[in-house]
Amino acid sequence: MIVQKYGGTSVGSAARIRRVCRRIADTVRAGHQVVAVVSAMGHTTDRLIDLARRVSDDPPARELDMLVANGETITAPLVAMCLQEQGVPAISLTGPQAGVRTSNHHSRARIQEIRPDRIREALEAGRVPVVAGFQGVTDDFEITTLGRGGSDTTAVALAAALGAEVCEIYTDVDGILTADPRVVPEARLLSHISYEEILELAAAGARVMHPRAVEIGELYGVAIHVRSSFRRRPGTMIVSEVPMEDRNRVRGVAQERGVAKVTVLGVPDRPGVAAAIFEPLSGAGISVDVIVQNVSTAGHTDLTFTVSDTDLARSLELVGPAAREVGAQGLSHSAGLAKVSLVGTGMLGTPGIAARMFGTLAAAGINIEMISTAEIRITCIVDGQHAATAVRALHAAFRLDQVEGPTSAAGPASAAAPA
Amino acid sequence: MIVQKYGGTSVGSAARIRRVCRRIADTVRAGHQVVAVVSAMGHTTDRLIDLARRVSDDPPARELDMLVANGETITAPLVAMCLQEQGVPAISLTGPQAGVRTSNHHSRARIQEIRPDRIREALEAGRVPVVAGFQGVTDDFEITTLGRGGSDTTAVALAAALGAEVCEIYTDVDGILTADPRVVPEARLLSHISYEEILELAAAGARVMHPRAVEIGELYGVAIHVRSSFRRRPGTMIVSEVPMEDRNRVRGVAQERGVAKVTVLGVPDRPGVAAAIFEPLSGAGISVDVIVQNVSTAGHTDLTFTVSDTDLARSLELVGPAAREVGAQGLSHSAGLAKVSLVGTGMLGTPGIAARMFGTLAAAGINIEMISTAEIRITCIVDGQHAATAVRALHAAFRLDQVEGPTSAAGPASAAAPA
Repeated sequence: MIVQKYGGTSVGSAARIRRVCRRIADTVRAGHQVVAVVSAMGHTTDRLIDLARRVSDDPPARELDMLVANGETITAPLVAMCLQEQGVPAISLTGPQAGVRTSNHHSRARIQEIRPDRIREALEAGRVPVVAGFQGVTDDFEITTLGRGGSDTTAVALAAALGAEVCEIYTDVDGILTADPRVVPEARLLSHISYEEILELAAAGARVMHPRAVEIGELYGVAIHVRSSFRRRPGTMIVSEVPMEDRNRVRGVAQERGVAKVTVLGVPDRPGVAAAIFEPLSGAGISVDVIVQNVSTAGHTDLTFTVSDTDLARSLELVGPAAREVGAQGLSHSAGLAKVSLVGTGMLGTPGIAARMFGTLAAAGINIEMISTAEIRITCIVDGQHAATAVRALHAAFRLDQVEGPTSAAGPASAAAPA
Repeated sequence: MIVQKYGGTSVGSAARIRRVCRRIADTVRAGHQVVAVVSAMGHTTDRLIDLARRVSDDPPARELDMLVANGETITAPLVAMCLQEQGVPAISLTGPQAGVRTSNHHSRARIQEIRPDRIREALEAGRVPVVAGFQGVTDDFEITTLGRGGSDTTAVALAAALGAEVCEIYTDVDGILTADPRVVPEARLLSHISYEEILELAAAGARVMHPRAVEIGELYGVAIHVRSSFRRRPGTMIVSEVPMEDRNRVRGVAQERGVAKVTVLGVPDRPGVAAAIFEPLSGAGISVDVIVQNVSTAGHTDLTFTVSDTDLARSLELVGPAAREVGAQGLSHSAGLAKVSLVGTGMLGTPGIAARMFGTLAAAGINIEMISTAEIRITCIVDGQHAATAVRALHAAFRLDQVEGPTSAAGPASAAAPA
């Protein structure tokens, strides 16, 4: 049994729906049971939200859910009727009909349980269930939506509930690449990646699959295959353990632009200071990304954090008074920065990767503003103007364009670092 | 308690939805409990059906229902959020949520029962329930649509189930007029009309309210108010008994173009002949309208019936063999005809109305091809080219442009017949 999820671009027109259905039909004819999960066509969701804004300045989340859920319930019957036209028995199901039970947090509901009775019934009757993604129902029969990454989440959760062999996520890219191909033309498709690695890549700015769906996949051990809906070749398998020879490597380099940095200078080194500074930000819903605090000198330290450029002004307003209150000596900030990150399970216990990353950036004449590391990730904050150069230099230095195989940090790859 | 139904034109844009909501808000502020029933915006349903045709030559009715039901479930939350924006607490409900239980005949489901628990709950909480019209749910949680006139039917059925004082049907015309104002500029708005009269007008070609909704209104004694969604003045009340002084009158003149006539000549006058001729037509789903059969002469008679112009060719193919089989002498036919009808409870027991109708048409030089009468209706089939002239002549002859009051068929109104 295979769960196949088709995103908005894949079902963006009648012609594309016909193509998606040919692929589902081929999978069925190859002897698989298929459950399809579909998103709203193209820009349907945006258009519905735009309509809402034209009748209400602040649409209630419950009504917005009722409204945007129509995007997916339009696609599902179109796909089901198209499959039948192609000779494949099929039946569309809304999220509620498919048994997707959620919490009652409108616009960001969590799946609590799936009762896939009707899906199983359809499969036993030899039909392809076509499920409207992104939506569910509460115990009170209220319609909810799952928020960002919702259809991916529906698909992976269904694959878990049904015990499917694999959950295929069809998208407009070929799979997970070593870098953004618009920045690095030599970026290479990864055949496998681990849940941890893709979660770190997503946190580092790579927008391929929503972390939420990946987390469910990891929790229930669902193999996720991210692949192109336009080309027939295999994409990237997200699994718990990547094959041995791929493991000991840097797997990808990610970037995120539009980063701003705030430094609180001369903060007294005593308990409660960090909390006093970050609480106003969290209260205002501002997301703080990287936080760095160095060891203190003479009872004082500098505390630096990043927010998105668009949140900078508001962050300074909030942090200013808090900093004065805790007795900090001042604030400094800069905007227009970028986050550049290396991700790979291979970093665990492979010495020298960080050193080579810093060396590569230095050789390219790029100054590092901040450094932050996690178990399988190293992130440098650099000037946004140098982000693309940094990504290309790192991609080359770590030979990410080459077919995978064990390398060591001190291996010959360092020779590939650009001048 | 008032049920208000707003059709597709009334909610055709964000601006129109805002206007509809101001009207609902005014009704609420005037102290009424309001239940709103809404149709799909403008051409949404047509666009969804068009999408279906682009992926399937013959979309299954079940999937088509799943698809087109989105039209109404888009409007309902938009209206609910717009009401809240205007300070009126509101909640949108899908047909299933509103408890509209139907048969499982997709695309033409019949309402079997309404369980308005959630509607009552909303009203008790001081909210306006905004119900998606045209749709319901079967016992198996399948989504159905009610077919033509569906949202009107939802509204009237809800008014019956809730015991509402009145069901207001908001539309793009002012109410029920004595004739089509595009044909007769002097056509006058009727303040009242009986269920029977509007049913006969609908059968005679006047397209204002679907007969199905009117029948439910008649059965449950729901007063229906057909009125303009653009103007604030009262429209037409559909009631079981029109006021005394309006009763004894011709109430309206209706026309229907595109009518064809088929005559089976020299049919033997014996049982089973009519059945033999009409069964093939009914089997092919062709709707036969007027049927006239004269007394027989020498054991033979002529049988004439009308179909729509578009069904003529197919009707002749089907009736030809059947006519030969029963021993008829031949077939004749003509197309491009029109049905012109007078309707009014006043016809019951008022002698001379038919004679004046025929005299008026004769005076206008219009030949009558066929005549058919019912209790409160007289229909003449005439050449389609003369339909508008016939309608205008009859409207004038029966003084339909004048404020209502008792008249007799032989009254001075006959002087108004055009030369």
